[in-house]
Amino acid sequence: MTAPGAMKDGLRGRPCLVLGAGGFIGSALCRALSEVGAQVHGFGREPAYPDAPGPVRFTRGEFDNKAAIARAVDGAEIVFHLLGGSTPDLSNKDPVAELQGLAQSIRLLETCRLASVSRVVFVSSGGTVYGVPASVPVTEEAPTDPISAYGINKLIVEKYLHLFRHLHGIDSVVLRVANPFGPFQDPFRRQGVIAALTHAIANRRPAEVWGDGRVVRDFVYVDDVAEALMLSAAYEGPHRVFNVGSGVGRSVLDVVRDIGRVLDWADVPVIHKAGRVADVPANVLDIERIRRELGWVPRTGWMDALRLTAAWIGRAHRPADSL
Amino acid sequence: MTAPGAMKDGLRGRPCLVLGAGGFIGSALCRALSEVGAQVHGFGREPAYPDAPGPVRFTRGEFDNKAAIARAVDGAEIVFHLLGGSTPDLSNKDPVAELQGLAQSIRLLETCRLASVSRVVFVSSGGTVYGVPASVPVTEEAPTDPISAYGINKLIVEKYLHLFRHLHGIDSVVLRVANPFGPFQDPFRRQGVIAALTHAIANRRPAEVWGDGRVVRDFVYVDDVAEALMLSAAYEGPHRVFNVGSGVGRSVLDVVRDIGRVLDWADVPVIHKAGRVADVPANVLDIERIRRELGWVPRTGWMDALRLTAAWIGRAHRPADSL
Repeated sequence: MTAPGAMKDGLRGRPCLVLGAGGFIGSALCRALSEVGAQVHGFGREPAYPDAPGPVRFTRGEFDNKAAIARAVDGAEIVFHLLGGSTPDLSNKDPVAELQGLAQSIRLLETCRLASVSRVVFVSSGGTVYGVPASVPVTEEAPTDPISAYGINKLIVEKYLHLFRHLHGIDSVVLRVANPFGPFQDPFRRQGVIAALTHAIANRRPAEVWGDGRVVRDFVYVDDVAEALMLSAAYEGPHRVFNVGSGVGRSVLDVVRDIGRVLDWADVPVIHKAGRVADVPANVLDIERIRRELGWVPRTGWMDALRLTAAWIGRAHRPADSL
Repeated sequence: MTAPGAMKDGLRGRPCLVLGAGGFIGSALCRALSEVGAQVHGFGREPAYPDAPGPVRFTRGEFDNKAAIARAVDGAEIVFHLLGGSTPDLSNKDPVAELQGLAQSIRLLETCRLASVSRVVFVSSGGTVYGVPASVPVTEEAPTDPISAYGINKLIVEKYLHLFRHLHGIDSVVLRVANPFGPFQDPFRRQGVIAALTHAIANRRPAEVWGDGRVVRDFVYVDDVAEALMLSAAYEGPHRVFNVGSGVGRSVLDVVRDIGRVLDWADVPVIHKAGRVADVPANVLDIERIRRELGWVPRTGWMDALRLTAAWIGRAHRPADSL
């Protein structure tokens, strides 16, 4: 195994395209790539926070714009695919509409093939592709029976990456990322429970949780996710699918308590809302494979990560919130 | 476990819709269902052999005709879904186009939900969903990494059946069928190597085989497949996915030899054509689960099945062939 530092250094000067660079993980990846000296090109929707991707070349564009995608892919050595998909709950309301994103992913692979891209790194969903796990932590070998169209579509893109590798020799790595959190995660979207809870608690409002709050999730800090993405870009071993998580399960009620500690509020009141059908009762990822193969471990401690998130929420949102 | 005979008797008088009734497996299923007294309605394209589905109500229609499908589903208790998909090789030429059939399958499930269908039985592909197996025979738990868009799409429909069961309580069973053969399989299509070889050998022409002829397949007689479909319609146990095959691997060269025996030609000359990229080197299904759960075993002996196939080819094709 090459040391993680050396693997990331290998990205210096290399042309990397980040598709979905305006999003939460995508912008963290852009920052991290530019820090190691990669030649970064971000593509995607306007970032919710303009400073999130850092000082990189950025092209605004939609995933359905074939010509714009082809221009962006041209000349890229490594393509990070973080585009597409709505949310698990929304996806179940209109699964046929979700197939649009799938068609775009297949076309993207065709484009990468024509442009002789060296490697595609795909961000899949460790929280949804496994469906309801028979036991946790879940290894990469566990059955994959999603309970959302969102999860099915992530899984299908994984299958197409395998197909294109077999048929056309396109190299790829899949990262099944657990629940990411950290700075620049929009607290007002339907995904990202830690951002939403931190924002509420910072503003001394009750914590709204889905169901009884006992669902268990695996939360992973976004800068650690960005590091896993960079390491997987340079990985030369036999595996093609990696879980990326903390390996630790925490209930939403645990999370509320810990955010309360970070923000000096001992007894955060909790409001329970109806459970969501696309929620699995427990999901924790087994991260032994990525530790062994890539030398990756989540470096940021849980409480530190919550503090960093809270600090950003404090800077970014309190002023806007009071408007 | 209920005895197989009793399970099939349970279909007497029950309204069964066969989607894809004009096709090879679909028409065998129609015949078998009407033999046990089910109320059979066949839907699909014009049968290649008009007498194939037997004396059942038949509606001609395409899968993309939503209204026609909805009318056909209305009132059906059990829906057998055998529609869609081209061939593994063709599917890889335009994977995006293949998504059409997938959208139609999802819409079909919506239609079944609205019509309160009791059960959907889906014919998946034991020859393609597993991709290149690490070892044979392949159990239902083996990894599923198809090397054709055709196989990916079968797998996705399986995933959507699971999703609709979870979200909406729609009951379903998936049969992963190996390489079916028997009467009414068109010898001039790209699928169905036994039909093509039997036709050639019956007419004293050389056997054309893809590659070196050493690829190993699991061939299963179509009437046995129809029986598995009927048994799975009444199954009440915990499993939802079953392999349907012979459990025996045979190389294409073995098959040529055995057809030669049936048709009294000791040394059939073989012409080798270029291998196909969507072909896996070996695929044999483990059929222990369906034996244990449904009491199903392939009843028709290998040489008997070849004889029945050859007898039909002799009746059906020699006259037309000489035109």
